[in-house]
Amino acid sequence: MPKSIQEINIGILGGGQLGRMLIQSAIDLDLNIQVLDPDPDCPCSSIAKLTTGSLTDFNTVIDFGKLLDVITVEIENVNTLALKELENQGKKVFPQSAQLALIQDKCLQKKFYVENGIPTAEAIFISGREEAKNQVHFLPAVNKMAREGYDGKGVQIIMDETDLHKVFDVPGLLEKHINFDKEIAVIVARNENGETVSYPPVEMVFNKEANLVEFLFCPAEIGKATAREADLIARKIIDRMGLVGILAVEMFVTKEGEILVNEVAPRPHNSGHQTIEANYTSQYEQHLRAILNLPLGDSDIIKPSSMINLLGEKGYEGPARYKGLENVLKLSGTYIHLYGKKTTKPFRKMGHVTILGDDLKELKEKTIFVKNELKVLAK
Amino acid sequence: MPKSIQEINIGILGGGQLGRMLIQSAIDLDLNIQVLDPDPDCPCSSIAKLTTGSLTDFNTVIDFGKLLDVITVEIENVNTLALKELENQGKKVFPQSAQLALIQDKCLQKKFYVENGIPTAEAIFISGREEAKNQVHFLPAVNKMAREGYDGKGVQIIMDETDLHKVFDVPGLLEKHINFDKEIAVIVARNENGETVSYPPVEMVFNKEANLVEFLFCPAEIGKATAREADLIARKIIDRMGLVGILAVEMFVTKEGEILVNEVAPRPHNSGHQTIEANYTSQYEQHLRAILNLPLGDSDIIKPSSMINLLGEKGYEGPARYKGLENVLKLSGTYIHLYGKKTTKPFRKMGHVTILGDDLKELKEKTIFVKNELKVLAK
Repeated sequence: MPKSIQEINIGILGGGQLGRMLIQSAIDLDLNIQVLDPDPDCPCSSIAKLTTGSLTDFNTVIDFGKLLDVITVEIENVNTLALKELENQGKKVFPQSAQLALIQDKCLQKKFYVENGIPTAEAIFISGREEAKNQVHFLPAVNKMAREGYDGKGVQIIMDETDLHKVFDVPGLLEKHINFDKEIAVIVARNENGETVSYPPVEMVFNKEANLVEFLFCPAEIGKATAREADLIARKIIDRMGLVGILAVEMFVTKEGEILVNEVAPRPHNSGHQTIEANYTSQYEQHLRAILNLPLGDSDIIKPSSMINLLGEKGYEGPARYKGLENVLKLSGTYIHLYGKKTTKPFRKMGHVTILGDDLKELKEKTIFVKNELKVLAK
Repeated sequence: MPKSIQEINIGILGGGQLGRMLIQSAIDLDLNIQVLDPDPDCPCSSIAKLTTGSLTDFNTVIDFGKLLDVITVEIENVNTLALKELENQGKKVFPQSAQLALIQDKCLQKKFYVENGIPTAEAIFISGREEAKNQVHFLPAVNKMAREGYDGKGVQIIMDETDLHKVFDVPGLLEKHINFDKEIAVIVARNENGETVSYPPVEMVFNKEANLVEFLFCPAEIGKATAREADLIARKIIDRMGLVGILAVEMFVTKEGEILVNEVAPRPHNSGHQTIEANYTSQYEQHLRAILNLPLGDSDIIKPSSMINLLGEKGYEGPARYKGLENVLKLSGTYIHLYGKKTTKPFRKMGHVTILGDDLKELKEKTIFVKNELKVLAK
């Protein structure tokens, strides 16, 4: 008899907030999950068995994975060679090591889009700062490190020649600066059987200073044709990749209504937090369903929603203290999620708030209220 | 500076499914919860710090409570003298020990209703089986043990003289057998400030053999006047008791439309499981808000819902195995909650399923499907 899903030993590389919400979702199916993370106080530490260790160290990842049946990630920056070896040993690794390796490298990702006819901004690959100096004609451009960019780090705008000294002196790319109208994201899931389910597009509003998602609204305020196009692109990417798990596809919508893929993340994503309350199946449950080859769930919207990232307030660093919780708790249809991080620092993702509403006007009013009211300070 | 809610040490007496769902809800506010339960494998054991020990032993409860700030329960059968002592030591105990002691004893509960003008079925108090023999004229009656009835145990119908030999030979009561039309429940919450919020009435359908809730539907199919009356009664009880926390009020609606209170439970309750998905604030979060004296949340319905208790199948005992999970996962708006109990036995509460729907017809169809599809068997 095959193992029941409760008997499968599941491991997550990474113990941050995305892992925490995966585990929260897994409790209801009584799944057996453990976590690898270097930080003994990481957000998963209080709700799952934690092994402390480096996600990028080959032997650590092998040792963590060898007693597991299914291995997944909540962060891209992991040792994919170790995951490849675990696949060779017969473990299920979802997303697969090859797809992770491709997505880890923004140059490889860009090549994949070009080779597969996925619309994306034109780019030039550079080995470092020196090579960028030959590309003045290509500016303004977005300069991305090929590897290890995360949470707004490793991405910057190079406006003109005078900015060239800032170019990251590592392999990466210069991407045509898109004067976009909106940033949207579509999350799509695929299980081993090849069943695919996508979520309605969401619209992201970034904090320019931190280059982080500050709010999002779902559904995105875009036309039906644009939404359909975004959906088709997201499905095309996951199918062409043959990826198993969830894939968040970030896209620009230009002023001309053209869609260009920015980048993808092969895991639950900031642009899907609101699915916990606002959609029939959350992205977290969907990811678990996908990696366990279960039937995928309905991704439809129950109510329009917004999501606010609760970022550490500028000027505060140290043990976290939340100001304004009570006033937000008074507001109907408002869901606070704190990640259990002990210390705050400027722009650190400390939690998020999802808001349900009946229309965009109500959502925007509530969103502004929560944004002004709830602050992460230090003691 | 007063402690932040994250710094408050909260303890739950009882580590069953109700405690588990309280803890699941507490994760999002990063609350610090620990549990006392005699069973090292209880449903809370995998997601919270567990102290193993008896809930009815004075010293065990004192030892558990002495390092805590706030103590609550997920089961009534606990040592209330120990809780009284903890209150004397300055601990917050919600529900309070006096209210727990009153509710623990169905004879005291009944007296409370009578003294406070709460409509309830007429009853006679008896010290044991012998005394019941003088009450033949009062039959048919429901015979309840005064104490320790739980999950359908300690309650039985005495139809006529030939049943008298079955009367529980302990203190208890004989209650006029009500030929009711429906059983409904209203959950009401009250915080220390005296703020009170009630949930819309739900309708319960019992499994006659096990005397357990088998399904419920929300909202209840009752008239507006009946719903308003039920709501007023529930609010009156919690206010007269001065109870802090959540109170589930089970009521009969007679064929004449009269409401009679059956009994109450001062904790999250089986009749509120569906609030996790179907209401803006779940009963679990509401209980936490109440005992921490936070503003209470909106109890309104997001979508009509049903709830199915997943009971251990008759004829199966041993390590649990779930049949039909995949087919239920395919059904939109269906939420499986497994309690993580290792072993099943006939009628043991192993989990529940909440179903969202747009109308009662759709809900009933889905409910029947899930009921037929999903079974708890043994390996």
